[in-house]
Amino acid sequence: MSEKRIIRIGLLGFGVVGQGVWKNIENNRQALEYRLGAQLRIDRIAVRDKTRFREVVVPEATYTEDPGSVVDDPSIDIVCELMGGTDKALELTRRALQMGKIVVTANKALICEHGEELFAIARRTGGHYFYEASVAGGIPIIKTIREALVANRFRLIFGILNGTSNYILTRMEREGLSFEETLGDARKLGYVEADESLDLDGIDAAHKTVILAYLAHGKWVRLEDIICEGIREITGEDIEIAGQLGYKIKLLGVIERDFESDQLCVRLHPALISEKEVIAGVDEVYNGVSVTGDVVGTTILIGRGAGQDATSSSVISDIADAVFTLQGAPEPVISEEDEAVYNKLADGLGIASKTALEGRYYLRLHVKDEKGVLASVSETLAKEQISFATVNQKENSDGTAILFLTTHETSEAAILRGLAGLTSTGLLGREPVMIRIFERS
Amino acid sequence: MSEKRIIRIGLLGFGVVGQGVWKNIENNRQALEYRLGAQLRIDRIAVRDKTRFREVVVPEATYTEDPGSVVDDPSIDIVCELMGGTDKALELTRRALQMGKIVVTANKALICEHGEELFAIARRTGGHYFYEASVAGGIPIIKTIREALVANRFRLIFGILNGTSNYILTRMEREGLSFEETLGDARKLGYVEADESLDLDGIDAAHKTVILAYLAHGKWVRLEDIICEGIREITGEDIEIAGQLGYKIKLLGVIERDFESDQLCVRLHPALISEKEVIAGVDEVYNGVSVTGDVVGTTILIGRGAGQDATSSSVISDIADAVFTLQGAPEPVISEEDEAVYNKLADGLGIASKTALEGRYYLRLHVKDEKGVLASVSETLAKEQISFATVNQKENSDGTAILFLTTHETSEAAILRGLAGLTSTGLLGREPVMIRIFERS
Repeated sequence: MSEKRIIRIGLLGFGVVGQGVWKNIENNRQALEYRLGAQLRIDRIAVRDKTRFREVVVPEATYTEDPGSVVDDPSIDIVCELMGGTDKALELTRRALQMGKIVVTANKALICEHGEELFAIARRTGGHYFYEASVAGGIPIIKTIREALVANRFRLIFGILNGTSNYILTRMEREGLSFEETLGDARKLGYVEADESLDLDGIDAAHKTVILAYLAHGKWVRLEDIICEGIREITGEDIEIAGQLGYKIKLLGVIERDFESDQLCVRLHPALISEKEVIAGVDEVYNGVSVTGDVVGTTILIGRGAGQDATSSSVISDIADAVFTLQGAPEPVISEEDEAVYNKLADGLGIASKTALEGRYYLRLHVKDEKGVLASVSETLAKEQISFATVNQKENSDGTAILFLTTHETSEAAILRGLAGLTSTGLLGREPVMIRIFERS
Repeated sequence: MSEKRIIRIGLLGFGVVGQGVWKNIENNRQALEYRLGAQLRIDRIAVRDKTRFREVVVPEATYTEDPGSVVDDPSIDIVCELMGGTDKALELTRRALQMGKIVVTANKALICEHGEELFAIARRTGGHYFYEASVAGGIPIIKTIREALVANRFRLIFGILNGTSNYILTRMEREGLSFEETLGDARKLGYVEADESLDLDGIDAAHKTVILAYLAHGKWVRLEDIICEGIREITGEDIEIAGQLGYKIKLLGVIERDFESDQLCVRLHPALISEKEVIAGVDEVYNGVSVTGDVVGTTILIGRGAGQDATSSSVISDIADAVFTLQGAPEPVISEEDEAVYNKLADGLGIASKTALEGRYYLRLHVKDEKGVLASVSETLAKEQISFATVNQKENSDGTAILFLTTHETSEAAILRGLAGLTSTGLLGREPVMIRIFERS
């Protein structure tokens, strides 16, 4: 065994995921080193505070409080950026890639915001940027799209990419709890990120959606150019009415490509999705992604989307790929001519505007419980050619009522105009709530 | 683009899958060659009869009726064995691997029966044997277990691995049709293999289960050493009763490893599986595999298990991996010392005997509709410590009755003795039917 090459790894950050990587390499070292044909050594770990207590016991000398020294250390073959954030992490990743190193990351925010620059650096210097752990924890979605489905063009990719919001929606549905009650429990369980907006406003899942869109279509989409809505407005009543109509409510990332018009539609929002879809049955903290390729048809992957072990499983999978790369696996030889051809393909690809969406909608309208209010609502929306597929009305004891409507096929632009129209009539007691209905086109 | 290396491919066999590989490489050549950094040429195709009409139009000179000449052709980098069978295919695969070539295959029967020899040849000569398409069509289960979940040891892998039998069970359930009626439709749709036993007696799915067991645990299991039962005995009534109890009936391959006793249990049989399991919801011709690793937790993959396009998607994925290998990606450097260590690990692993299984069972007993018959059945089974969890009885107009029973936890050995006991009492009008109940341990 001693003849095998030693691969030296440096970790930037040693929180939940970093400690999971250490622990799981230790637990499974023999089989892992056999499979890789190499020895793995985590030689350097950069932390903010060496003296802090950690579950995992690591030789004192491994720690440093200077992450730059890990990146610059010429003996380090693989840098695992597990610190998160987009300032210091950007600087260190950039530096490592500029040196032609291999960087393994779980940092979806960094890739989403700076991936275009970072991948370009890697291509120029011969460095590598591996990111399986950044999307959907333990689900091998990156490897599946990049390698296993290499023969495919992707018409539709959609799925549940944030475990925390899925946990909240699942408990609201099963136990009839309110958003606030389940959020409280999720906080107690440590499921909610310190910056709660990442989970609750859909930003985390949108980051992942943007990464998958790039991976599948070679196009970077900016977060501000796409629909990105979280789950704060969803009530138990919405979930109940949706259930009566045969739907569940899930926070979905959707990447749809129309090959005829060559438009790419990327979005992240809560959606009513038919109970019959496998993805609708992905509950609790699980994530699930459905990929429809022109050759393979639909393939669905489901698994734990976060947590120490699932995420570190993906980091270790990337370390394994990095080891093969270090032992001589080449990247595809991409000539400048090729690059130009490919970029032209992606350049032709337009990003659909936020209001270009077409489909069916669920609306919740809080109205005064007066005669003719449904007629007025109906009339206002009819001006935008919006008609109803289903109507449910619930009367409150305070003289108000709630209308739960689903529409026939219409457009996002019409819905937005229709809702603005309703607001201006003064019929509504509070802001209307709109949830898109997801259907395979 | 012209500087890119040309990779020359030879196909052995040009049936449904072979033509799919040709068609889908043509359809997607530009993106594929970009991603691979190489040019792909299918230069030689061995067929039995050159003159036969084929959907796909291929230059005349590509064809040969001598498959050996394709294997021996020094310009051919990758041999795709898509002819099936285990005679000629074995000889040709052996020859190609002995020459150190790369062989890509979809032939599960060949791997199941001769994989041990073929992989050993490949290790000795530096050849490669890629087999993603052999298990679960378009689902990247091989790559997922081998690469994405490299950090894991696998406690439980189970799933639906034969689309034809799943189609039959699904239609029986949804439409209340008999086995024979749906089989007739499946034949008309071309879903059933020429050798029907492969689909109906579980042999095809058992081949795949054996391959997954080797992949996950490094141990070859012989088909004759494991439980292998098909779906011929399943009736609409079984499916109905199972449904009332919250189960579906699916043909499951199961690979369970007990790390404490280091026993591996591999089996393939119809099973009652809780409706709440995602795999229970995998219907029609779809396949689904659930993989539980000690690090990643449970990951589930669902997709089309067969058919031209799904299978050729996997063949092309293997061709892509082969291209990277040809461009210099090394296999892990496995010293003899390592090999010995690893083999010892797998050698310690025992194969559980067919009767070692423990669990709950569903029984269908055809009895005379007489007073006290249930008491007699109950008494006979009680001798083997078998007790009932549920009892349903259905009376027939001809003076016979059917007992549908589920048992509490017992053992396969006890059930077999109990059923033999029942048969010898003369209480039964025909052979008893037993279906295992699948539960996660």
